[in-house]
Amino acid sequence: MIKAALSVLLVLVAVSSAKYIPKSGKRIPQTLSRGWGDQLIWAQTYEEALYWARLRNKPLMVLFHLEDCPHSLEFKKLVSEDNGIQRTLDEDFIVLNLMYETTDKHLSPDGQYVPRVIFVDPTMTVRADIIGRYSNRMYAYEPVDLKLFKSNIEKAKKLLKSEL
Amino acid sequence: MIKAALSVLLVLVAVSSAKYIPKSGKRIPQTLSRGWGDQLIWAQTYEEALYWARLRNKPLMVLFHLEDCPHSLEFKKLVSEDNGIQRTLDEDFIVLNLMYETTDKHLSPDGQYVPRVIFVDPTMTVRADIIGRYSNRMYAYEPVDLKLFKSNIEKAKKLLKSEL
Repeated sequence: MIKAALSVLLVLVAVSSAKYIPKSGKRIPQTLSRGWGDQLIWAQTYEEALYWARLRNKPLMVLFHLEDCPHSLEFKKLVSEDNGIQRTLDEDFIVLNLMYETTDKHLSPDGQYVPRVIFVDPTMTVRADIIGRYSNRMYAYEPVDLKLFKSNIEKAKKLLKSEL
Repeated sequence: MIKAALSVLLVLVAVSSAKYIPKSGKRIPQTLSRGWGDQLIWAQTYEEALYWARLRNKPLMVLFHLEDCPHSLEFKKLVSEDNGIQRTLDEDFIVLNLMYETTDKHLSPDGQYVPRVIFVDPTMTVRADIIGRYSNRMYAYEPVDLKLFKSNIEKAKKLLKSEL
C-alpha cells in the first residue's frame, strides 16, 4: 500500500517536472551561428552588430544566406571549415548572419540575393569597395571564390585599421 | 622508423582536421532561445518575426530582456518552466526575444526597459491594450505578475482571432 502510494507520488513528481515537448517531437535548439562557425560570437540583429562594431572599433561582416539554397550551403561549408577565416573573423570582426532582409537599404546596394557578404566599417559605412567578381551581383561569392573572399576579409581588416 | 613516420602522419592529420577553438577556450554556441524556451521556434529579427506573423496569421510576442538583469532572469525562469505558457506560445504565437532595441519606435511606446513584453497582431499593429500593472512601465512584468502575463497571452490569442 505504501509502495503503491510512493509510486503514484513518483509519477506525479515526474509529470509535473517534465519539460514542454512539442507534439511534433523534441527539437534541436537553433543556434545564432546557423552552422557558419559555432565558436564565433554572432550578433543577433543588425542594430546589435552596429553597436558592437562602434564600441569595439572593429569592422562588421554581414552574411546573407538561406538554408535551402545550395550555393549558400556550399559556401557555408567552406567558411565554417576554414580555421584561418574562423580565427580572423573571431579576433578582428563583428559577425552577423541573416536569413531575412533588414529594412536598411544600404545592406542591399545591388539587390537582395544569397549568399551575399557586406562589409561595414566601424563608422557604420557599407564598404562598396570590398566586392566579389560578379558585376551583376557584386557582393556574391561562389565556392571557387574562397581565395578572393579571404583576401577581402584581410582587406576589410587592414584598410579599416589604416583609415580610421 | 615506419612507426615514427606513421605517428607524425597521424599528428598531421589530427592537426589539419582540428576545428577552430578560440584562445580563450571553447565556447558553448549561443541559442536563439537564450533560455526562454529551448523547444520554441524563435525568430531572429523583428523583420523575420513580422514576416511569419503575417504569413501564419498569428500574433507576435516580442520580449525584451538583458542577461545581466535580475528581473529579466527571474521572469525568464518562470516563463521557461511553465509548460502551459510554452505550449501556447509554441502553438499560437510567433516569438522573438531581443537584448538590443530595434530602430522601430513602436516597440518602445513608453520607453526602453527590461523585461518588457509587446504583443503585435498579424496586421502588424502593436497592441497598446495588452499591458501589465505598472503605469510608468506599461509593458513590464514582475515575477508576481505571472498570472496577469498568462491572461494577457490568452487575451492576445483570443482577441486577435475574433477581431481579424
